[in-house]
Amino acid sequence: MRADPFADADLTRDAMLGGLVQIWQPRIGYRAGTDPVLLAASIQGVAGQSVLELGCGGGAALCCLGRRVPGMRLAGLEIQPGYAALARRNLSDNCLTGDIWQGDLIDPPKEMKAESFDHVMANPPYFEAGKGLIARDGGRGTGRAGEVPLHAWVQAAAKRLKPRGYATFILRIERMPELMSAMRDQQLGSLELLPLLPRAGRPPRLFLLRGRKDGRGPFTFHVPQVIHPDTIRGDTPDNYTEIFRGVMLGGRPLEFEANRS
Amino acid sequence: MRADPFADADLTRDAMLGGLVQIWQPRIGYRAGTDPVLLAASIQGVAGQSVLELGCGGGAALCCLGRRVPGMRLAGLEIQPGYAALARRNLSDNCLTGDIWQGDLIDPPKEMKAESFDHVMANPPYFEAGKGLIARDGGRGTGRAGEVPLHAWVQAAAKRLKPRGYATFILRIERMPELMSAMRDQQLGSLELLPLLPRAGRPPRLFLLRGRKDGRGPFTFHVPQVIHPDTIRGDTPDNYTEIFRGVMLGGRPLEFEANRS
Repeated sequence: MRADPFADADLTRDAMLGGLVQIWQPRIGYRAGTDPVLLAASIQGVAGQSVLELGCGGGAALCCLGRRVPGMRLAGLEIQPGYAALARRNLSDNCLTGDIWQGDLIDPPKEMKAESFDHVMANPPYFEAGKGLIARDGGRGTGRAGEVPLHAWVQAAAKRLKPRGYATFILRIERMPELMSAMRDQQLGSLELLPLLPRAGRPPRLFLLRGRKDGRGPFTFHVPQVIHPDTIRGDTPDNYTEIFRGVMLGGRPLEFEANRS
Repeated sequence: MRADPFADADLTRDAMLGGLVQIWQPRIGYRAGTDPVLLAASIQGVAGQSVLELGCGGGAALCCLGRRVPGMRLAGLEIQPGYAALARRNLSDNCLTGDIWQGDLIDPPKEMKAESFDHVMANPPYFEAGKGLIARDGGRGTGRAGEVPLHAWVQAAAKRLKPRGYATFILRIERMPELMSAMRDQQLGSLELLPLLPRAGRPPRLFLLRGRKDGRGPFTFHVPQVIHPDTIRGDTPDNYTEIFRGVMLGGRPLEFEANRS
């Protein structure tokens, strides 16, 4: 648990979306990578709609979404006070406004419970009950939030959604059955799956799953999308397929059906 | 419900697996297509092991599996007496032995309940509760088995499996979340998904899902496999990618990881 605010000396300021967003984040500990960018890019929000991120960390996804879709109401919940403070600073430094609540999704603050949202998004820690924290906050002992079971994340999302609102999660592929079950249990329907392949012909490592509150439509399995091209140009920032270069470096949306022929 | 045996005049005899198997089936009504061949090809059985097919219809999948893996104990459950009789005839005419029980998977015959199996496989009717029978037995009024909910199929499979035995289902992609939830609920774990793409770059229409009784391993999402090549050679029997030509016309197994690079 990170209770204290971070000292400036412990932070770096990093460009995301090709520099459209600048994020303060700790030198050591959880640092935003690809996942929050993809999560934010997958939200089909428009000005006037609201979004809540559960477990928003330092606010990278909220900043990316706020930058792409001006006029959205931004809100985040973060259990670790140090990260919550960082998220507030990052919103402000990117000329965005929003509410970051510090609290636990099992028992959220009353301000959060008083509101409902068009979109809820989350990138839960890579943790499975009884199997330890697989990634995130590697070894810093700040990953207690990871002990909240996945179904509690899904339940919290469902509770805070407006009727017909959308919940969107990004997770490691190993947890796909668990997340699907949890979403079905919480009446999040019309499920849409987008598997994310590191390279063509490889199995997915990540997936996006979107569900609609009380949705009754059929499940849709979208054409898996490939993040990196076959030709490896080394570990350079532009080592993305065309669609993902637009998403990662250009602040473009990630359409679930972008690859569809 | 098809209670009477089929008259010979109502049957055709069709080659499967490129002629390795010959199947009697009704001219009108449910006719075996790709699904039972793929289901049978996906079973990693060896001589001495046993397999039960729930809802075996005319026995096409059991014949294909029995032909590929000699020495397996073959058993099937079929609710419609006419199809059960056909399955017995098909086994016999393909020089295979096995037991075909006529009965309901909700309340199976005691001979079936007395036995447990290394593998259980099923290709449940394309039916969703309250949404009507989508396919199979088109309009002949023989599809009452389709009214059994999917979780009952999964429960029946789990009950008849030996410890560490495998349940394998082939279904339309729309039902993937429902099947995954049902398998998790029945302690069928170590799930392995193989999406089947009609063509490269298209979303899957079918999937195979395998689970192990009391399996505790992580979920595996295998590289989706492509059934038909991009170049359309018309509706000819060899319009398959190399792997599926081997499966459909050569009686080869369908390995979940065959495409893996």
